[in-house]
Amino acid sequence: MELYLSDARRHELWKRHESRLREALQAWQQRTYWYAYPEEPKAYSEEAVAKGEADFKAQLNRPFDRLRQEGRRWLISDEVSPYTREPLGISYPWVDPTTALERAQEALAQWRWVPYTERFALLMESIEHFSRRFFEVAHATMHTTGQAWMMAFQASGPHAADRAVEALAVAYHELSHIPPHARWTRDFGKSQAVIDKYFIPQPEGISLHIGVSTFPVWNVMPGLYASLAIGSPVLVKPHPRAIYPIALVVAILQETFEAYGLPPTIVQLIVDSVAEPIAKKLAESPLVRIIDYTGGPEFGAYLESLPGKITFLEKAGVNGVLIESVEEMEAVARNIAFSASLYSGQMCTAPQNVYIPREGVRAKEKQLSYDEVAAALTKAIEDLASHPKAAPAILGALQNEETLHRIERLAAGVAVRRQAQNYVHPQYTAARTLTPLVAEAAAPTETFTRTEHFGPRLILIPVKDAEEGLTSLYQLAQEKGMLSCAIYTTDPHFKQRAIRLLSEAAVPLSFNFRGQVFINQSVAFSDFHGTGGNPAGNASFTDASFIVKRFRWVEIRDCREG
Amino acid sequence: MELYLSDARRHELWKRHESRLREALQAWQQRTYWYAYPEEPKAYSEEAVAKGEADFKAQLNRPFDRLRQEGRRWLISDEVSPYTREPLGISYPWVDPTTALERAQEALAQWRWVPYTERFALLMESIEHFSRRFFEVAHATMHTTGQAWMMAFQASGPHAADRAVEALAVAYHELSHIPPHARWTRDFGKSQAVIDKYFIPQPEGISLHIGVSTFPVWNVMPGLYASLAIGSPVLVKPHPRAIYPIALVVAILQETFEAYGLPPTIVQLIVDSVAEPIAKKLAESPLVRIIDYTGGPEFGAYLESLPGKITFLEKAGVNGVLIESVEEMEAVARNIAFSASLYSGQMCTAPQNVYIPREGVRAKEKQLSYDEVAAALTKAIEDLASHPKAAPAILGALQNEETLHRIERLAAGVAVRRQAQNYVHPQYTAARTLTPLVAEAAAPTETFTRTEHFGPRLILIPVKDAEEGLTSLYQLAQEKGMLSCAIYTTDPHFKQRAIRLLSEAAVPLSFNFRGQVFINQSVAFSDFHGTGGNPAGNASFTDASFIVKRFRWVEIRDCREG
Repeated sequence: MELYLSDARRHELWKRHESRLREALQAWQQRTYWYAYPEEPKAYSEEAVAKGEADFKAQLNRPFDRLRQEGRRWLISDEVSPYTREPLGISYPWVDPTTALERAQEALAQWRWVPYTERFALLMESIEHFSRRFFEVAHATMHTTGQAWMMAFQASGPHAADRAVEALAVAYHELSHIPPHARWTRDFGKSQAVIDKYFIPQPEGISLHIGVSTFPVWNVMPGLYASLAIGSPVLVKPHPRAIYPIALVVAILQETFEAYGLPPTIVQLIVDSVAEPIAKKLAESPLVRIIDYTGGPEFGAYLESLPGKITFLEKAGVNGVLIESVEEMEAVARNIAFSASLYSGQMCTAPQNVYIPREGVRAKEKQLSYDEVAAALTKAIEDLASHPKAAPAILGALQNEETLHRIERLAAGVAVRRQAQNYVHPQYTAARTLTPLVAEAAAPTETFTRTEHFGPRLILIPVKDAEEGLTSLYQLAQEKGMLSCAIYTTDPHFKQRAIRLLSEAAVPLSFNFRGQVFINQSVAFSDFHGTGGNPAGNASFTDASFIVKRFRWVEIRDCREG
Repeated sequence: MELYLSDARRHELWKRHESRLREALQAWQQRTYWYAYPEEPKAYSEEAVAKGEADFKAQLNRPFDRLRQEGRRWLISDEVSPYTREPLGISYPWVDPTTALERAQEALAQWRWVPYTERFALLMESIEHFSRRFFEVAHATMHTTGQAWMMAFQASGPHAADRAVEALAVAYHELSHIPPHARWTRDFGKSQAVIDKYFIPQPEGISLHIGVSTFPVWNVMPGLYASLAIGSPVLVKPHPRAIYPIALVVAILQETFEAYGLPPTIVQLIVDSVAEPIAKKLAESPLVRIIDYTGGPEFGAYLESLPGKITFLEKAGVNGVLIESVEEMEAVARNIAFSASLYSGQMCTAPQNVYIPREGVRAKEKQLSYDEVAAALTKAIEDLASHPKAAPAILGALQNEETLHRIERLAAGVAVRRQAQNYVHPQYTAARTLTPLVAEAAAPTETFTRTEHFGPRLILIPVKDAEEGLTSLYQLAQEKGMLSCAIYTTDPHFKQRAIRLLSEAAVPLSFNFRGQVFINQSVAFSDFHGTGGNPAGNASFTDASFIVKRFRWVEIRDCREG
């Protein structure tokens, strides 16, 4: 019985990608160091570097005409470079929600019946094509998000591509452990029963992806590829200020689908503007069943409250650091300062609250006072922020004005160890920059420590002792959630207690991070991003639940002998 | 780093059960004929048969004192035998919700940190012990649900045990594909980073299981064992009229936990009465995170509406049958009649609506008229219902009076081909019995065909042709949901079209069931029960999502070199 829309060319393509996908799955299961795409720019050709920049420049102030979807009109986007403060001047085809949903319905009718191996083939192929655009996406990301160039390249390029491959690997794991067909026979003595059983994975429906301005590609890729993998068409609704990077991904996917005889509208780019947002209208449509979202907790709570939706949300938490004891304070301070400064703290995994025991911190034979620890942290921030090369390379720029105001508001009401300041970007004098504020609280109960102040900031918080620090982390995690949490301790018993307590609150923990590893970063195939079990979000990149909640097994039994 | 509460005896026990669990997992993945416990009573010892009956008789009119949990008082249950119409007279320890939740919290603190292999060992062991009680549970089930003895034995005994083993096998699959520990190393040239990564599966919280009166064990086992497997303690709240069968399971689990040094309150029996229900109070507690439920759609919708809960619901649908063409009408009619009569239609998978083309049904060379098909079905029901041995063995008794009234109400307002009637049970003259009503609608649009009339009934519905029948099934599935759907066709093209259409509505389909196989039945390790994708329910026994929604992976990163 032929149920599926098989195609010889797509099947050939699968044979080309199969072993790579299996390798990725094995890596995901082993969770040691592995990548699909190298993160060093020098691993790619020099032509690619040059072409990326040229393509970016050629795209500015022109319609983005690479999509294979018709729009009713061209919408000039709200995208403004945080570096030049000039609009990108790119227009995108605007599609009304009703038309977009109709096209998605039509695409669903075909896409769900493409054998999943063929879907994987096209999706792997699209990532391969995307890798040839890593340098264009780097510039597009830099000039929409404010990320420094290297980070923009890595986060939107190889790291995002790796997270997409990872989502496919997990989907392959979850789809392939049930056979498409099994013949069940049972001997009843006088007679025999023979039943052919078919197991069909059916998507829950159409997917909607609502993107974020700070990570317009990295945060989209896992959900986008997970939904496509299980046969669900996706409407990609980027943040109106960061469309270009993900528009590239959508264009490449559409091109790939079309090249292999499928409707490009299996994925559609749905643009809107700051003035006229469209996300609610899409989210509330009964046709949209699956919603992926990264962004503020309020809109996240609204999405969660919609009946009949399956949501994958990354909202926000308040990330904490606790310093119980250290090997070497300077190394610890440098590491924390880097994590707080990276992309000016505009990462969901950036630390905010640093809990320091009033009784001091043991450092090998020495005992450091609270003030010595606070001073070391402030100095490390200062060293980094005032370094002419490090500052632009690490901090980048602020994505939007509101973040600037948020940090100003925070600074106005609290004790300040170090003021947030503008730094002069060597290349872009107009850049919207801000070095981290180092604020200080009197106690962990102060209300301003229990809110996220998204942006370049670190809040030092004295606690009686490490035990009180642990309790504070636990309460904060339960109340607000965390996407990262760092603990410094040389005491194995304390470590064990911290793991027991905080893992029960589903807090992802990092112990004694120093040198080249930072708590902000999670690597595909080895680290989960988020746990999905605390208020910061209900999903994780990428565990099995990220995949299996998107589809259902439908069993068909065909009785051959009764 | 030792995080877990390991125990040498439990580990020994795991070594004893490991290969069996792996075998079960392999069966689940292959989905061919396999079972953990044979369904033939004769596979068990004669002593077991006799002891089961004796134990049952000894339990009547006495406190159920086998639980390892204290109650504030003894509650005499509402259990009444549908066969003798006499109260069972069994009392159970009554625990107030607050105390029960406190005990569950305490149990959670330990149970979540028992290594999952040791949890599996205890759970497999408990099922093994339960198998020695299959004959007692058969009597207990018969005299609470009204099931005939053989069905009570199979459904609450080996079939329920198999579904529990299956849930453990899937949980093992989902917990074991991520390693508990991985060492991640990366060479940075000048330095090397080494990170120990620990992956901890953490339960979402405490589980509540709300049972149903018709299948007090079979419908509980998958969710109960799934939650226990991932480290979540379970409050089992049976239907007040069917406590005894599942109380046996709880008692055995508690005994097993205690024997291996763990709190018996990892699972607790929470009883209530028809007059004073307690389920809402438990469900609404913020401590309860996971809810499994089988029962009416209204209470199911209420549970679904509670914020912050993870629900696994089997509500109800309206199951349909479509006869497009047949090999032999009598065989088809016998099969449908059996499915409608089995346990007097008190199964969530029993067929209700039979769509028959007005233009008739092809049977090999013959063309049968609508009336011939309707007559064949009515005759098959009559033959079965009037057979002195078949009726008691297949129909059993009605669990409650309301089902009797429901069928009476249905019969009062519609055209009737065969009246529902009492039959005299040879052994229990007081038994509440009812043979199936065969009603008839004028068209598939009639409203009474779009509601579930739970009980012994079959509604014949003329449709213009098979295409209209298919459309009717699709609409019904979308609107009300289905837990089973039978189609009879000898046309491969029609079959393909039916699969395409109905699988998109997540309807589990059975084609041409005849002889010894019936659409009501799903077998563990091969069949999913429900799809979770239509209004009849949001869960399936047992797919990966049934497990992974109950826990989160929490990753701990311990930096050895930075």
